[in-house]
Amino acid sequence: MAQNPVLVPYIRTAHYYETDKMGVVHHSNYIRWLEETRIDLMNQAGLPYTEMEAMGVMIPVVSASCNYKYPVKFGDTVEIHPYITEFNGCRFRLEYEIRNLTSGKLSATCNTSHCFVNMQFKPIRTQKEFPQIYEIFNNCIKVKI
Amino acid sequence: MAQNPVLVPYIRTAHYYETDKMGVVHHSNYIRWLEETRIDLMNQAGLPYTEMEAMGVMIPVVSASCNYKYPVKFGDTVEIHPYITEFNGCRFRLEYEIRNLTSGKLSATCNTSHCFVNMQFKPIRTQKEFPQIYEIFNNCIKVKI
Amino acid sequence: MAQNPVLVPYIRTAHYYETDKMGVVHHSNYIRWLEETRIDLMNQAGLPYTEMEAMGVMIPVVSASCNYKYPVKFGDTVEIHPYITEFNGCRFRLEYEIRNLTSGKLSATCNTSHCFVNMQFKPIRTQKEFPQIYEIFNNCIKVKI
Amino acid sequence: MAQNPVLVPYIRTAHYYETDKMGVVHHSNYIRWLEETRIDLMNQAGLPYTEMEAMGVMIPVVSASCNYKYPVKFGDTVEIHPYITEFNGCRFRLEYEIRNLTSGKLSATCNTSHCFVNMQFKPIRTQKEFPQIYEIFNNCIKVKI
Repeated sequence: MAQNPVLVPYIRTAHYYETDKMGVVHHSNYIRWLEETRIDLMNQAGLPYTEMEAMGVMIPVVSASCNYKYPVKFGDTVEIHPYITEFNGCRFRLEYEIRNLTSGKLSATCNTSHCFVNMQFKPIRTQKEFPQIYEIFNNCIKVKI
Repeated sequence: MAQNPVLVPYIRTAHYYETDKMGVVHHSNYIRWLEETRIDLMNQAGLPYTEMEAMGVMIPVVSASCNYKYPVKFGDTVEIHPYITEFNGCRFRLEYEIRNLTSGKLSATCNTSHCFVNMQFKPIRTQKEFPQIYEIFNNCIKVKI
Repeated sequence: MAQNPVLVPYIRTAHYYETDKMGVVHHSNYIRWLEETRIDLMNQAGLPYTEMEAMGVMIPVVSASCNYKYPVKFGDTVEIHPYITEFNGCRFRLEYEIRNLTSGKLSATCNTSHCFVNMQFKPIRTQKEFPQIYEIFNNCIKVKI
Repeated sequence: MAQNPVLVPYIRTAHYYETDKMGVVHHSNYIRWLEETRIDLMNQAGLPYTEMEAMGVMIPVVSASCNYKYPVKFGDTVEIHPYITEFNGCRFRLEYEIRNLTSGKLSATCNTSHCFVNMQFKPIRTQKEFPQIYEIFNNCIKVKI
């Protein structure tokens, strides 16, 4: 419990419908891949998103940012490495590397920040109100994936 | 009230992010345009979708179908003509023509069918339970747009 | 070569961003899942889509249709069974069953039809012009998955 | 020609399919709205994106960033104010304010940066190679919209 969990990166392949007429994946889809990555990370950490929602907790995106380096093409496989850099019980911040396994290039570096809210979008302090959520996030801070 | 409303087609322009690497609008987006068209039609008919939802009524898609004839390119303007062909208070069916004003070609003919449900996804008979919804849909049947 | 290949269904999990405010996966995304399924099927059959494109052949969607039976929720896993029902070298038709493994229900039955075109969107007769493509599709007709 | 053009903000309404199960517009769609806004701005400035592409010039996104302040709901109308803050002939940067006209709140502040490339994704110096593009962008720098 007190130990850091073993976490692996998220892997997925670029879909045809994710490309645009430039012939590469549209940049907005990277933002969606980050969401897939967070949800996969939470699954691995033992806190499936659906369970957290069933507890009445959501984690809306407060900010999102991407630096696009090399395009991803249809059919390319990307490996996304998330990294929780900040967490204080009320908010957290993630950094991500999107590595294109097909081209061998770093495709993008991104980050998102989030807060914890209830179903009425009111801020939550997880340490006091949801200690089990607090503990899981706290165990994942700065775990290299 | 008893009169058919005057309705106009829905017009919109194809976005860059709606294209795929084939260089034309991805076929899945047509299905989304039909939704925009229905919502515009309901606005025109005096029943904004948000108001209907506030009354506790939703109209999920039971079936959707498209015949794709000529591709739509980025920047093309399409005019979508909806036509309510069936309505019995519990279900309705729409046919659509997607006309590409830029190319002058008929891009697609489509149809969708829907049922009325409450927030628990239980079927609703609008004639008895929501006569104002019933009347508005009933006035729109077979109105040529 | 003359033998039917062994093919397995396509499995994937519903993403958060694929839901809408009704709380379930938006119906337009099923159309995208069918594309993922076709591309997976072609990979399995030994004809990756990117290779076919590199040969100058594309398979645009001529029609698409879905009957929606039970909603898919965020996090649900679906198993999609494609089935090539028609193929004549110029066109083909697929039927699909989307089975929700999480709920145990049949979520949708769908179909798409396609033609073979070159990069200028001109129709292609694969039997004559691309016999290797013809053979692969021909081996997959009516293979139960 | 030497005069700054008169530019107006971009206005659009949030679509149903842009919402997610949180009941508000999914954050990834804001990135797509920025693209719509850029393309509208270029239209207004006299350089339609399709014309620029026909000249062999593309402007891929190098970075994109959003700070989300208040959610946008289905049916809300947003007014997006773009502002070109930097341009040197090779690259440019835009800032955006997304104002929710329905709620009266500032929904998000965003920025994107772009480079000019040819169809082989090689960097272009517009001042030398495409002076008409250079002039149009140069006239738009720091024009308040």
